[in-house]
Amino acid sequence: MGYNNKTVLVTGGLGFIGSNLAIRLVELGARVIVVDSLRPGCGANSYNLAPVADRVELIPRDIGEAQEFREVLAGCDVVFNLAGEVSHIHSMMAPERDLEINTAAHLRFLEVLRRERPGVRVVYAGTRQVYGVPRYLPVDEQHPVEPVDYNGVHKYATSLYHLMLSRMGALDAVVLRLTNVYGPRMALRIPCQGVLSTFLRRALLGQDLEVYDGGQQLRDPVYVDDVVEAFLRVGAAASLPARTYNVAGPEALSLRQIADTIAEAAGVRVITQPFPAERKRIDIGSYVGDCQRLRRDFDWAPRVCFADGIRASLAWYREHLAHYLEADRPPSCAMPEHQGRKRKLVLVPAQ
Amino acid sequence: MGYNNKTVLVTGGLGFIGSNLAIRLVELGARVIVVDSLRPGCGANSYNLAPVADRVELIPRDIGEAQEFREVLAGCDVVFNLAGEVSHIHSMMAPERDLEINTAAHLRFLEVLRRERPGVRVVYAGTRQVYGVPRYLPVDEQHPVEPVDYNGVHKYATSLYHLMLSRMGALDAVVLRLTNVYGPRMALRIPCQGVLSTFLRRALLGQDLEVYDGGQQLRDPVYVDDVVEAFLRVGAAASLPARTYNVAGPEALSLRQIADTIAEAAGVRVITQPFPAERKRIDIGSYVGDCQRLRRDFDWAPRVCFADGIRASLAWYREHLAHYLEADRPPSCAMPEHQGRKRKLVLVPAQ
Repeated sequence: MGYNNKTVLVTGGLGFIGSNLAIRLVELGARVIVVDSLRPGCGANSYNLAPVADRVELIPRDIGEAQEFREVLAGCDVVFNLAGEVSHIHSMMAPERDLEINTAAHLRFLEVLRRERPGVRVVYAGTRQVYGVPRYLPVDEQHPVEPVDYNGVHKYATSLYHLMLSRMGALDAVVLRLTNVYGPRMALRIPCQGVLSTFLRRALLGQDLEVYDGGQQLRDPVYVDDVVEAFLRVGAAASLPARTYNVAGPEALSLRQIADTIAEAAGVRVITQPFPAERKRIDIGSYVGDCQRLRRDFDWAPRVCFADGIRASLAWYREHLAHYLEADRPPSCAMPEHQGRKRKLVLVPAQ
Repeated sequence: MGYNNKTVLVTGGLGFIGSNLAIRLVELGARVIVVDSLRPGCGANSYNLAPVADRVELIPRDIGEAQEFREVLAGCDVVFNLAGEVSHIHSMMAPERDLEINTAAHLRFLEVLRRERPGVRVVYAGTRQVYGVPRYLPVDEQHPVEPVDYNGVHKYATSLYHLMLSRMGALDAVVLRLTNVYGPRMALRIPCQGVLSTFLRRALLGQDLEVYDGGQQLRDPVYVDDVVEAFLRVGAAASLPARTYNVAGPEALSLRQIADTIAEAAGVRVITQPFPAERKRIDIGSYVGDCQRLRRDFDWAPRVCFADGIRASLAWYREHLAHYLEADRPPSCAMPEHQGRKRKLVLVPAQ
C-alpha cells in the first residue's frame, strides 16, 4: 500500500483505533511513531501496542505540546490524527476539558505541523456524532451538521481546522467520520465510551445487557479492521477527490439486535430498561451511515459482518482479559481524574 | 417592542454593534446591563455609550468570567451575545487567542447562563464568514459551512453551542449571521476590522481608498440601525420559527462601487492595488446574503440604502472624530497587545 519505509505518525496511538492502525502499519513496513498523552479517560492502554512494542517509537506527550517534538513532525510522511476524548457524556459533564482535548490541543498541533511539514497528508478521525439527530437515513456527507453535545461541536470544529488548512494549502487533510467502531483493544474499563464498549464489558463479565426503551434505534457498527483499512487507503491515496468521508458499517442493526448478537455469543441475557434522562437528552435516535463516497473513491467497503466481528472480539478479549477488565472495579460515569498527564509509560513487550 | 422595564444583557456592549443596540434598548425603556472585557483589539470604546452613560450598568469583565457576575445573569430577561473578536487576519496570526475569545469564553459564559437562567432567550451575533467561499449567490442559511479562517471556525463552533443548548432546552437561542455591517461607532482605530472600517477611516483622514485587483467582488453592506432592528425583533419574539437567520444588506455592490460611494461622499479618490497574499488566502470572493427567512418570520428588511448610510456615518464620525481616529497613529495589522484585560473603565458622560 505504499507504507513500506515510510515514516508515519499516529496520534492517540495507544488508544483503540490508533493502536490497531499502528500495529498494521508496522506490519506494512512503516516506521511508526506514536504520540499519546495517556490522559486518564481517553482510552490509552500501553498493552494495546504489546505486539509491536519494540518496533514503535513512543512520544508520551499531549499533541498540544507539539512544539516539544516538532523535529519529529518535520520528518513525517503521513499523519494519522486520532488523539481525543470520545465520550459524549463526559463532554457534557466537563465541557472545558473536552474543548481542551478535542479542539485546543489540535489547534496547537496543527499549527506546529503546518510550519514543520507544510502540505503533509493528515487523516483526522472525525465522528458521525456531528450529524446529530439524523434527518434521513442513511446519512451521507451532505447531511446537516447539528451536534447534540459538546463532544460533537468540538470534534467538528477540529475537522473544520483540517479542512480550512487544506483549502489554503497548509496541509493535505482528509476527515473520516466514523460510525460506532468495535473490536479488539477498545477501552472497556473506561465508562461512557459508547454502547458497544459497555455491551462488550458486561458480556465479558457475564452480566446482562441493558437496552433502553426496547432498543429500537438503529446503528451500523463497523469492525476496527475495516476502519483501519479506510485510514490506510486515504492516508496513501495519491489524491483526495473529497475531503470528508463517512466510514459506515455493513449492516443496519437495532440496538436490540446488537445486544442479542453479543448476548448470544457470550451467553448472557438482554433486558430492557427505561431511558436515563441524561442519556436521552443527547441520544440521536437511529443512525445508519452512507459510505458510497468512500467506496467510489477508494474502493473501500466494510467486510466484517457484525456477528463475525463480535465473535472475534470476544475471543480476543478472553485471551487478554486482565489488560482490559477489572471485575472488582465496576466503572461509573464519573469523570476520569486528572492525575498528572505524564504518567510513567511502560510498554508491555510482545509475548 | 416589549423591552420596556425588561432587564437586558448586552455582551460586547462597548463595541460597535453592541453599543448601538444598548443605546436603542435604553430608548425603549429597558434596564440595560453591558458586559465588556475591554480587551485590546476587540473594538470596545467607552465613548460608544456616551449618550446613555448614566443609564447603563457596566460590568467590565470578560464573558468567560461569568461565574463572577452570575447573579446578574439570573435576573436577565434577554441576552444579546455580541462579545468577540471580529478580525479574520488577527485570527490567523494568533489562533489560540481567537479560540479563547470567540469560543472558550463563550463556553464558560453559556454554561453559567444555562444554570443561572435556564431557558433564557439569547441572540448570538454570528457571521457570514462561516459560509466561506460562496458556492452560489445569494447565500441562504442552507449554504454549506466552509470557513476559510480560524475566526470563522471559532464563531461557528460558538453558534453550534447556542443551537445545541437550545435543542436540549437549556437556552432559547437564535443565531444571526451578519454580513458586513457599517455605521456610527465602528472601531476605525483598530486594524483589520474589515473593508468598511478601513474605507471609512481612510476617507475621514482624506486618504485615497484602495481596492484590490479592481474590486469586482460583491458585498451587501448593511447599516447598523437595520442590524439593531433585527436583534430587537428576534430578541423579543414570542417564538423562533428557525434558529439561524442571515442578516443581509439591501444592495449587492462591488467593492469598487462601495469605495466609489464612500470616496464621492468624502471627497477622496479610489485607486486599485494588487491583492496582498495574506489577504488573498482568506478572501471569499463575492458574497451576497439571502435574508428571506428573517423577512418572512419577523417582517424584517434592511431599510437604509448604502449611499444614505455612508452619508449618515461620515456626518456622525465628523462630529465625534477625536474618539475614533488618531491621525498621527496609522494602524498596522500588527496584533493588538495583551496589556491587562481589566483596564480602568471611564465612561464618558452624555453631553
